[in-house]
Amino acid sequence: MSAKKGVSKLFKSLIYSKHSVEDCTQVLSLHSYSPVLTPSSIILKTLAFPINPSDINQLQGVYPSTPEKTLDYQTGDVPSAIAGNEGVFEIVDIPASSTSKLKKGDWVIPLKANFGTWSTYRTCTDPDDLIKVNGLDLYTAATIGVNGCTAWQLIHNHISKWKNDNSEWIVTNAGTSQVAKLVTQIASFLKINTLSVIRDRDNFDQVADVLKKEYGATHVISESQNMDKTYNKETLPSIIGKNPDFRLALNSVGGKSSTAIARKLKKNGVMLTYGGMSKQPVILPTSLLIFKNIQCLGFWVTENGKQNPQSKVDAIEKLLPLYTEGIIKSPKNDLNILEWDISGGMTDGTALQLIKDGITKKGKKNLIVLKH
Amino acid sequence: MSAKKGVSKLFKSLIYSKHSVEDCTQVLSLHSYSPVLTPSSIILKTLAFPINPSDINQLQGVYPSTPEKTLDYQTGDVPSAIAGNEGVFEIVDIPASSTSKLKKGDWVIPLKANFGTWSTYRTCTDPDDLIKVNGLDLYTAATIGVNGCTAWQLIHNHISKWKNDNSEWIVTNAGTSQVAKLVTQIASFLKINTLSVIRDRDNFDQVADVLKKEYGATHVISESQNMDKTYNKETLPSIIGKNPDFRLALNSVGGKSSTAIARKLKKNGVMLTYGGMSKQPVILPTSLLIFKNIQCLGFWVTENGKQNPQSKVDAIEKLLPLYTEGIIKSPKNDLNILEWDISGGMTDGTALQLIKDGITKKGKKNLIVLKH
Repeated sequence: MSAKKGVSKLFKSLIYSKHSVEDCTQVLSLHSYSPVLTPSSIILKTLAFPINPSDINQLQGVYPSTPEKTLDYQTGDVPSAIAGNEGVFEIVDIPASSTSKLKKGDWVIPLKANFGTWSTYRTCTDPDDLIKVNGLDLYTAATIGVNGCTAWQLIHNHISKWKNDNSEWIVTNAGTSQVAKLVTQIASFLKINTLSVIRDRDNFDQVADVLKKEYGATHVISESQNMDKTYNKETLPSIIGKNPDFRLALNSVGGKSSTAIARKLKKNGVMLTYGGMSKQPVILPTSLLIFKNIQCLGFWVTENGKQNPQSKVDAIEKLLPLYTEGIIKSPKNDLNILEWDISGGMTDGTALQLIKDGITKKGKKNLIVLKH
Repeated sequence: MSAKKGVSKLFKSLIYSKHSVEDCTQVLSLHSYSPVLTPSSIILKTLAFPINPSDINQLQGVYPSTPEKTLDYQTGDVPSAIAGNEGVFEIVDIPASSTSKLKKGDWVIPLKANFGTWSTYRTCTDPDDLIKVNGLDLYTAATIGVNGCTAWQLIHNHISKWKNDNSEWIVTNAGTSQVAKLVTQIASFLKINTLSVIRDRDNFDQVADVLKKEYGATHVISESQNMDKTYNKETLPSIIGKNPDFRLALNSVGGKSSTAIARKLKKNGVMLTYGGMSKQPVILPTSLLIFKNIQCLGFWVTENGKQNPQSKVDAIEKLLPLYTEGIIKSPKNDLNILEWDISGGMTDGTALQLIKDGITKKGKKNLIVLKH
């Protein structure tokens, strides 16, 4: 148990016991403690964790999935939870008696949400709560559990049989988002065409070129083209062919954008809503529902993982070789890296401020990388 | 074949070869002809047919399901179709060799849409294209194929297991519509609670009382109550209980009404849209889709019948005893009866005008009853 005793002094976690919608950074504190270790404890060294919108919403108290607050972390009589749902860890100690295939040095991600990833170290007693992700780079490993799985499951969960012959289409809005870029890369590999809708912008051609050449999008249109009836009736068919077989629409915008991508679907098509960036509701003409039998469904990777944890394991298994073979790009360039140096140089106050900055900073997704 | 020769002179059908959105009554003509009879011909005497919105939309050329136009009706070289999708017939001649269980004198309705019911007589060669409805009154028999089947299938097609113990709920808007009143009656029989939403009106209490006492609605609210957050949070639970288990929302209105009934659904609930009276699209907050996994689907009884004709046979089989035992009321009082007297007194011009009046007259559903 010497290794365990060694690391047990280094447990620091971002914890919270209350919530605040106004300023959720105020509910966070950086807490040092000695974890309760048992003979079955697996000890995990945190390598990196992203700050996802769902993490922030949990701190605000407005997210429908939340970790239980407990007294496990030596917080006296104040039940607390560790923040963070996603991240990558290295196994630094695993009982010799463990029957799992995991071993010291393996990189793992949590199977379930609410794991409490915003920590220097974590413990875990059930190896089945961990998914091995050896071979991935740090940036991919730290984000595959949410974005990667979301993209894979969006394509597969509701469409059972793709023809995989470049005859079928997916339309996605928010085409420059991480998930959309994963969708176009995976779809390209699976020989499914993608129409990416992106916001109107001055450098449209440049962004569209990157999406097509680097991320495998088949065609890219702007939101004004997406919503323009004449464009959709005349111009678009002249580019992508008449009656393209749009089976799936992926909506993370809402409002008129969702209406316009739903209109592109063929009979019996499915629109999955997994976000609502515009803050507008999904708007669906009645005729699409009745006469085209469009199914408008929601998608929440967290709930999928709860209902069917194996689905996450399966998705990771499918995704791993796509990353290691370079079919899907590392998300590194789409991340803002913040380094938490726990090797000695950084005070707790500075570390806490670093996380708070990650919460408030807009733009690229913030990834905390730990320097041990 | 003498019986056949006798009736073959009496074939008159409302036919059309063109469409008009502006005035669809102009495309209709009343056409007399001698049908092509074969040894397998079943001859059907029309007893009554309703004028449904879908019939009118077919004449306008704006309905996605249409009969083929043929030269079968002695219209020279002008391909024509007989109007009408629904109606009840009496079998006046059926080949003795037929292996079907149908016999002369049976009342039947068409299995499929586009049957061409606006006629004095019709022929049919396949007895499997007919569903026996003996025992129903004329008004029920003439309308069970659309409204009755719609109501039955709305309740059953997407919810596989109801508990049937008065613990679960259906919410429906357009509560005074024929389909909604069928839903409340069927649900009451099945021990499923119903919340009927009706338009605000001066005689709200009176209409609500009728829906509750005569049509089995569990509770009735107005559209303003439907959309009022405080009412839904405080008042409604005090009446129908906290956390009512709303599994199904039936929407034939759209707009904010659809949003408000969708909000009442519990996790994994289903909203079926089968109409859009308000001409507004269905509007769904993103959170309902993602976090409550509300499924927003369309419902079209015509398409269901095409995809699975047996589903219509099954629905009728279930509905028949409910009508004959008085569990579901005859729709007679909700129909405007127009009599087409073909026994001699009415000219073709008068008969045609009668149908045209039925098309243009608003209010109650118009039912043409034939006097032979």
